[in-house]
Order: sequence, then structure tokens, then C-alpha cells
Amino acid sequence: MGREELLEKARAGVKEAYLERDRQLIQCVNAIDELDRAGNLLFERLQEWYGIYFPELRVNEPEKYCELVLKVDRKNLDMGEISKIVGEGKAKEIEERAGRSIGVELGEKGLDKIRELAAEVLDMRTLRDSLEKYEVVVAKEVCPNLTYLIDATLAAKLIAHAGSLKRLANMPASTIQVLGAEKALFKHLRQHTKPPKHGILFQHPWVNCAPKKDRGRIARLLSTKIAIALKADFYTKNFIAEKLKAALDKRMDEIRKG
Amino acid sequence: MGREELLEKARAGVKEAYLERDRQLIQCVNAIDELDRAGNLLFERLQEWYGIYFPELRVNEPEKYCELVLKVDRKNLDMGEISKIVGEGKAKEIEERAGRSIGVELGEKGLDKIRELAAEVLDMRTLRDSLEKYEVVVAKEVCPNLTYLIDATLAAKLIAHAGSLKRLANMPASTIQVLGAEKALFKHLRQHTKPPKHGILFQHPWVNCAPKKDRGRIARLLSTKIAIALKADFYTKNFIAEKLKAALDKRMDEIRKG
Repeated sequence: MGREELLEKARAGVKEAYLERDRQLIQCVNAIDELDRAGNLLFERLQEWYGIYFPELRVNEPEKYCELVLKVDRKNLDMGEISKIVGEGKAKEIEERAGRSIGVELGEKGLDKIRELAAEVLDMRTLRDSLEKYEVVVAKEVCPNLTYLIDATLAAKLIAHAGSLKRLANMPASTIQVLGAEKALFKHLRQHTKPPKHGILFQHPWVNCAPKKDRGRIARLLSTKIAIALKADFYTKNFIAEKLKAALDKRMDEIRKG
Repeated sequence: MGREELLEKARAGVKEAYLERDRQLIQCVNAIDELDRAGNLLFERLQEWYGIYFPELRVNEPEKYCELVLKVDRKNLDMGEISKIVGEGKAKEIEERAGRSIGVELGEKGLDKIRELAAEVLDMRTLRDSLEKYEVVVAKEVCPNLTYLIDATLAAKLIAHAGSLKRLANMPASTIQVLGAEKALFKHLRQHTKPPKHGILFQHPWVNCAPKKDRGRIARLLSTKIAIALKADFYTKNFIAEKLKAALDKRMDEIRKG
């Protein structure tokens, strides 16, 4: 083979590697993760900054806080607008708090900057949600069996953590069970602490809502079925998830009954 | 005094504390810092993700990379558009690279999501620049003497690190000199390693462009004049910076001449 041919072949090989849809999924999972973290930090910053002007403003949902920052002038409250965002009762409370606020003037310019920051935080959350929708679509496409068994975002996280669908599909159930708890696992191996019972799988509601003593067993059950689903997703491409889910539900019922 | 009166007085006290413009400045400095960090992370993510589609695209400026992501279709290059962003020479190079790209199809939906991410990264940079402009304005207002001596963003960083203008104004020059190098300083005190010669002040061009052996002296000189400027900014409110700057330049000349 000539040099050109060899290069061509190499390129084709790389191209094939690139074709794996799971790489896109992993990028998406990580982007969401980073947006979450950055968004939270900037939201905290926003609260601290706006807190100079209106420290008494307390709202639980970050989105609503941002919208209030964008629309509330503490000195000239637009009650209609505020009610639209948080409802009438809460709007009254805000009115009362604004009346006795110890916050100080920031000047129109300062407020403008804070509003720009609030808009950015909202933008980041919108992007995050948009990426999550895409994540679910791609996850269902990449691993139809797995996403039938568990939540698509959880499936995506498992794949992202393993590094590829192939790697995850090749893992034994016991590894999947503790995926994401590597630190505890290695500590167990080195210092003979208790082994971890679950890693990322802790995010499954069956695990985190269960009494502590059952969690290990449930994580083990889940990971066994997940491993089977993954083999089907990666190797045979058969859709076997219905049967698998029925078996899973049955075993789960038995565990619940004790 | 009745309870109401006392409360009123307390509120007034807090209000006064709030009035300090430096608090706004500090929020602004920290917001910029967080935007920088988050923006860099997301930009790296963008490159990695878009790299699945067009791994050969290499541009030095993040802004231009984002704009290319928004406007380049690797399969159907709009050379005019690309030239507008990176110039004709670089556009030719991109065309050539696109021709032999080993990247794979992502599908229109995938590309859309990447473009949303690119737009977000650009937004964050725009906000960052907008905040920096504001930072400079407020810094000049808060400490006219200090910002006459050194760059306003550097002055803002010093204040942010100290926690308030007052705290910074009360620091001896030797503390200002190593502000931001606390880790090295405490290591020096505990383990008798060499003391740090500069902290945040390293960002001053006089320090970081100087030969290593002179840096300590220059940082010391700067911090001495900075300490004086700060006393004027916080206590006397006189503008003494012109004289101070002349003295600073003179001493610096002497150091340069050896």
C-alpha cells in the first residue's frame, strides 16, 4: 500500500470511531454538568450582589429570583408584574419587605449590571434544559433497552462515567453497581473500610428512597439487569427490555415485602 | 429609647454600612472571576464537542472559534462569512482542512445544540466585558488615587482580596506586597521556606516583566506607594496621586538603571 492509501485507511478508521453516537451523548452530559455548576455559582453571586440593594428578597426557585431581579424596582413596585411571577400572597410579602428594606441605592448603572447577570443565569438554565432534552433523545437512541429500565439522564450519566457505551457494556454488574464510587472502593481495597454499595446508581429513586439496609441489595439488583440491557444495546441490538423490566419489578416487589 | 427607635437606629447603621461602594466593586470583581472560569470550562467543552464534527478546526481566539461554530457548515462552506471572521488566509486553511476532515456527521439537531452552547459562551464573554467596564468606573470612583497609580482592574482585585477598602487601607505596605500569596507566606512562617515576594501585585507589568532578581524590590516599591495612595483614598480623600506617581516613576527608573 502507498502512503496515501495508508493515510486514507487510517482516516476511515478514525471516522468509524467518531461515528459512535455515545461520544455526543457524553459531551452533552458533561456540558450539562458544567452548566449546572457554573449556573449555581453565578446564581449565588447574583444573590449576594443584589442583596446589597434588597437583602430581604427571599424566593426559593432560582428562576423566579432572577425574574424578580429583572423586573422589581424596590422603590416603585409593579405589583401586577410581581404577582405574575410569584403569586399574590408572596407578592404582598415582598411589598411589605421592600417597605422596610435596609438595602441601599446602587444607582441605575449598578442595577443594570446585576440585571445583565440575572439574564445570563436564566439563559444558562434555558440552555441546560435544552441540552437535557437532547440528552434524553440521544440516550434513547444509543441504548433503548437501558433507557427502558432506568431514567434516560441516569443512563447517560453511567455511559459518560464509563467513557463509552462499549466500555460500560463490558463491565460486570458488580462494577456498574459501584460506578462513581471509585474513591470509596479503592479506600476499601487499601484500608479495608466497608465497600461502597452504590455509586451513580444512588440517584435511582428505588435506591435513595429505600431504607438504608435495603439499598445495597436494590443497587445490586438494578446493576444486574442494567448489565444485561447493555449487552443487548451494544452487542445483539435486540429489544429485550420489556421482559427485563417485568423481572426487575418482580424482584423489587419481593425485596419490598422483605 | 423605645424598641422601634432602637430598631430604626440599627437599620440606619446597617444602611450606612451598605453604602460603601467598595462592596459593589467586590461583587463585580468576583462575578468577573467566576464568569472567566465558567466561560473557559464551557469553551473547552465546546471545542471537544465540536471536535467530533470538525476536529481540524483550530483558531487561537475563543470568540472567533465560537463564531465559526455558529456560522460554518463543514459540508457547505460560506467562504465570505469565514473570511469575515478570520481573514482570507486563515479561511483558505480552514477550507483545505474541511476538505480532508475526519470528523463525522452529528445531525442537524446535534449541531444546533453545539451552536446554542457556542452562543452561550459568547454571551458570557460579552457580559464579562460589560462588567469589567463597570468595574473600572467604580474602582476609579472608590479609589481615585490608587487607580491613578495602577490599573483599575488590579486595584479592584486588591480591594476584593482584602474584603473592603477600609481593610486594605489599614494594611501595612508589606502585607499589600504579598496579598494573594497567603499560602506561600504561611508556609514560610511554618517551614522557613523563602518568603513570597509578591502576590496579586505580580500581575502588574512592572513586576512580571522585570528580571526575576528585581521583582521583589519592584513589588516592595509599588506596595509602599499603594499603601500611601490608599490612606488618601480612604481617610483624607485628597488627590495626591500625581506627586505619588512621579516619585514612583523616579524610583522605578533608578531600579531599572541598577
